[in-house]
Amino acid sequence: MTQEVNTLFTNALVLTMDKDFTQYFPGAVAVREDKIVAVGEESELKKEWSAQETIDCKGKVLMPGLINAHTHVPMTLLRGLADDLRLDVWLMGYMMPVEREFVSPEFVRLGTLLACAEQIRSGVTTFNDMYYYEEDVAKAASDAGMRAVCGQTVMKFPAPDAASYDDSLQMARDFIARWKDHPLIIPAIAPHAPYTCTAEILRATADVAKEFDVPLHTHLAETAFEVENIRNDHGMPVIPYVKKQGIFDAKVIAAHCVHIDSGEMRTLLHAGAGVAHNPSSNLKLASGFAPVVKMLETGLNVGIGTDGPASNNDLDMFEEVRLAAFIAKAVTNDPTSLPAPWALAMATRLGAQALHLGHLTGSLEAGKRADLILVDVSPLHNSPSFKRAADNAYAQIVYAGKSTDVSDVMVNGKWLMRAHQLLTLKEDELLAQAAEIAKQIDAFLIEREQSVLSKLIALGGSLEQESFEVQVKVKITETDPVIRALQRPEIDVIRERHYREHDVYFFFDDPSQGRLRYREDDFVDDARNTVTHVRARLTLLGQKREGKFQDEVLLSRSRYISPASQSLRFYREYFKPKSEVVIQKDRLRWLIQYKKTEFFVNLDQMQEPQLGYYLEIKSRTWSRKDAERKAQLASELLSVLDASSGEKVTEDYIDIVGEV
Amino acid sequence: MTQEVNTLFTNALVLTMDKDFTQYFPGAVAVREDKIVAVGEESELKKEWSAQETIDCKGKVLMPGLINAHTHVPMTLLRGLADDLRLDVWLMGYMMPVEREFVSPEFVRLGTLLACAEQIRSGVTTFNDMYYYEEDVAKAASDAGMRAVCGQTVMKFPAPDAASYDDSLQMARDFIARWKDHPLIIPAIAPHAPYTCTAEILRATADVAKEFDVPLHTHLAETAFEVENIRNDHGMPVIPYVKKQGIFDAKVIAAHCVHIDSGEMRTLLHAGAGVAHNPSSNLKLASGFAPVVKMLETGLNVGIGTDGPASNNDLDMFEEVRLAAFIAKAVTNDPTSLPAPWALAMATRLGAQALHLGHLTGSLEAGKRADLILVDVSPLHNSPSFKRAADNAYAQIVYAGKSTDVSDVMVNGKWLMRAHQLLTLKEDELLAQAAEIAKQIDAFLIEREQSVLSKLIALGGSLEQESFEVQVKVKITETDPVIRALQRPEIDVIRERHYREHDVYFFFDDPSQGRLRYREDDFVDDARNTVTHVRARLTLLGQKREGKFQDEVLLSRSRYISPASQSLRFYREYFKPKSEVVIQKDRLRWLIQYKKTEFFVNLDQMQEPQLGYYLEIKSRTWSRKDAERKAQLASELLSVLDASSGEKVTEDYIDIVGEV
Repeated sequence: MTQEVNTLFTNALVLTMDKDFTQYFPGAVAVREDKIVAVGEESELKKEWSAQETIDCKGKVLMPGLINAHTHVPMTLLRGLADDLRLDVWLMGYMMPVEREFVSPEFVRLGTLLACAEQIRSGVTTFNDMYYYEEDVAKAASDAGMRAVCGQTVMKFPAPDAASYDDSLQMARDFIARWKDHPLIIPAIAPHAPYTCTAEILRATADVAKEFDVPLHTHLAETAFEVENIRNDHGMPVIPYVKKQGIFDAKVIAAHCVHIDSGEMRTLLHAGAGVAHNPSSNLKLASGFAPVVKMLETGLNVGIGTDGPASNNDLDMFEEVRLAAFIAKAVTNDPTSLPAPWALAMATRLGAQALHLGHLTGSLEAGKRADLILVDVSPLHNSPSFKRAADNAYAQIVYAGKSTDVSDVMVNGKWLMRAHQLLTLKEDELLAQAAEIAKQIDAFLIEREQSVLSKLIALGGSLEQESFEVQVKVKITETDPVIRALQRPEIDVIRERHYREHDVYFFFDDPSQGRLRYREDDFVDDARNTVTHVRARLTLLGQKREGKFQDEVLLSRSRYISPASQSLRFYREYFKPKSEVVIQKDRLRWLIQYKKTEFFVNLDQMQEPQLGYYLEIKSRTWSRKDAERKAQLASELLSVLDASSGEKVTEDYIDIVGEV
Repeated sequence: MTQEVNTLFTNALVLTMDKDFTQYFPGAVAVREDKIVAVGEESELKKEWSAQETIDCKGKVLMPGLINAHTHVPMTLLRGLADDLRLDVWLMGYMMPVEREFVSPEFVRLGTLLACAEQIRSGVTTFNDMYYYEEDVAKAASDAGMRAVCGQTVMKFPAPDAASYDDSLQMARDFIARWKDHPLIIPAIAPHAPYTCTAEILRATADVAKEFDVPLHTHLAETAFEVENIRNDHGMPVIPYVKKQGIFDAKVIAAHCVHIDSGEMRTLLHAGAGVAHNPSSNLKLASGFAPVVKMLETGLNVGIGTDGPASNNDLDMFEEVRLAAFIAKAVTNDPTSLPAPWALAMATRLGAQALHLGHLTGSLEAGKRADLILVDVSPLHNSPSFKRAADNAYAQIVYAGKSTDVSDVMVNGKWLMRAHQLLTLKEDELLAQAAEIAKQIDAFLIEREQSVLSKLIALGGSLEQESFEVQVKVKITETDPVIRALQRPEIDVIRERHYREHDVYFFFDDPSQGRLRYREDDFVDDARNTVTHVRARLTLLGQKREGKFQDEVLLSRSRYISPASQSLRFYREYFKPKSEVVIQKDRLRWLIQYKKTEFFVNLDQMQEPQLGYYLEIKSRTWSRKDAERKAQLASELLSVLDASSGEKVTEDYIDIVGEV
């Protein structure tokens, strides 16, 4: 007696991707509702099962759908926006400013639908995501019919979807509670990374993951820099540090794991954690070479992910699988490393296990959900076919297959693509909407790029507004007379400082953009002859003077100032100056009162270039009238300090030195 | 007044890939006969030129065709035949045996046509080849309408198309003379590599290249092993060595250059040599990471190649360009290395220059040949598009473009593909023929894989035929009595040797396959207590005895023997034994005459495992009658050597030790 099923696939090269790498040719798979009920030889299954629909696969490969083990799908909308940049410039200079401006539930929905279309086309049936407004990712993925682990981001910074960590944690709880039993979506919590979360956040997210028994998705040990920082701050590598916060009590999915040692691998193994390897992303961002062969030898479930399409720049798992195999060979110096069957296992069975979904998907076995794809291995770029060994079939897919060879995709027993036609998504509409968003982002960035000031503002952080300053500067030959004169009774010294100032000035093609100064102040403790601390600031200087008074006392408009939280290298790559000039000086600085008015007195020794000594007298001002009064006082002070005979200098130091 | 052209491309994003990376949008290109006559803004060109056909490119990218700077195109027919193997196993165990059996002018033609179809589909307009029967590659490429540098292979070994180096040199001369002025084909000479050519071959091929002013295409410094060998044999690295042979007097195209230093880069630069970088091949075969960024900084013309499709396993230049950019970032630990515009320049302008064809192709500039392609950057996997910066366009192609996005291809002013339809090739016929060849190769290899003997024979090299041996073996406790007895007058010692023998026995699943012994004989000079030389041999041992005489004297069938020119590791990976046993012994061996008959007398001390001393008496035999006589003499000799009371042993050493 035959039993009834919905669909019987016949005449296929069935790669089950089960743990024995069982193949059937001509093979068959029987699907009833959302599940696979039988896999085997065609002749056997034809006897046992009668189907509402029988599909002749015409010799194509029938295999489990691919598992994209780590991504940020809404970032399809930022694909190709900025490339060939260092991670910090890319993230702080482009991604985060644009995300602050554009990311919304609608943006997330559109980006996810685009990503689903691209992933279905390339044979992905399950993906593991981390982004903002993750509930909208979940809705879109479920509408598209894909299986997805959806991780709501939690981190210590304000995010596009949450003003604080508490808000995002609450969002995550509510989302998980609502979606817990969905047939396609596995809600999850995603503390972004150890360096963007506090220990408290790691513990709190692990608690939520345990409470609801859902996965915890995070980035771990992606760069050497991260490992170094965690080691400096906490005295241990990344994996022991996050273990200490209890995250391994949850079902962890650890993306990257580029810089971990064999002890850390064992920790992950004992914790039952899954790993997501991201070959393209690790290469393109120069993060390093993950020790994939060692991780597999340790027994870890290592899946493969595309990472977000803004850094990769696509969601092509065929490319990732091939690259995983290639890189493993090159870094172990052994072409037999990570052979094709295992590379493909990483993208299927091992990937599903890494996501803690091994019981549901990742291989074609009776009882699992019907997540499967048909791949044509007969196109020109993959012909001819050899059948001498079982491994030939895996090598065809891994070493010469293209995502465009996927013709049909079923998830949870439901067709998402047949004969290259998407059934759940309208590509043209999505593309039109995406083009509209891209136009807005282009306009936003073009506007911003037009001015150094707007690029500075886009970086965020606290930025002082413009102010006006009265100042006079004279060249002097000796400093002792000035220092002595500062002790006169009419001058009240409030405080005294000693800095060494290292300035780098950026010049731009368009002089009206002004100059950008990156200054490091080394605070010198003269008693102990040590630098007590260093302060870095960024200042945008205009070229114009606002006014001039007697004795060459100037009124200048000063100048956007922000703390320089990034490195000089960051600002160089972000602002792309046409040239740079370095100036170093030794500065003695007094804050004084003279006739009840505060002035700064700077006694500067120019060291690079060696230009001798200068005296500067400065005071902030807020009105024209106040400025006139202070200009008068500054002029008097010059005399009090015995410097009125010195050569008056009306230029900034950078103008004295000039552009090189 | 407008001038007449054949074709005017309009409404394109024109990436000229000239040295200033000039772009036009909406841009236009005018083509007359085989040449580009104008490139620029659409509005300008529309005024200046009237065309027989105007093509609206609908915003697609119009760019120079890609240059595949190093390949072996006929190997499409061997794609996916054997993967995940070490180079020597892959080459000596699979490629060369199959090539010896199958490569013919017809094979080369079919493989080339398939490769042309695949390359045209993926936007390649020029390729640089090296194979056998290269004139047939040239004919096929020209029939397909592609531009190609066709290098006839010359090497010291017999090749499928030439019994000797002289033959292949003559073939190369004749081929070059006949094709010298072809509009599409640039004939060339291809000394395979420094390690497969003698110094004389390198000089002779350089002379031919100079005489006809054609390129010389060769593999240089592909693996660390090659560099080490050349250094050992010639006392210098690869580039100085081949320079000494005069090859840089010719126009060299050097494939790989993975292991070269900055001095060697300067040598290549001064010689005007081009370099072909092969990212996929170098990763998949674990050859190493070529210093691409340094080569470019040195000023070298570095192109990108796919290498042969049997090792890659495809001819997809989009993949190679992306990989070149990725790897450069990862190995320099700098994500700003080899940015997208430069990666694409390597695949176009720099590639053409590397092939010494910079005057003909590689960029869209007036005066160059019309080799151009249209690429659709609007598909789902490459949407949306940002236009903020000029580099966005290169990043789209390099980081998210697919070969399947190429829609139209023109070479030398002639259409080879329009709207994804090939115009010069019939894919279905080619695929059917390729499938037929693949079936034959499968059958050949399956037949071969069935027997260890046929796998051994497939390796080639001199192989001794079977012979018969009479032998007797006894266990002894002391060696001195035997050594003394050998001085008796009835024994005439012809020579005496002392070896240490290291044997590794391979066992197979099917015992009837016999056992394969890999033996290293260390020849010991007792006077100086040194090993004078080492000989390695491979012997296939059957399990059967052919006969037995009195005193346990045996007649055994011996056994295919060949010199073991490869490493133990090679044979292990090639024959895939199910288990191995190691035996080591110290052997004193005398060749003696006794009653005018030659015998070998072996006095063996078994060291691993420690089994004590054995005496063996052996003699070759060719007829049953001769065998009977020698068995009688061997029996007598046992007495003469005072060993007839010893325990007779009828087993080979390996059977005494047994399978582990």
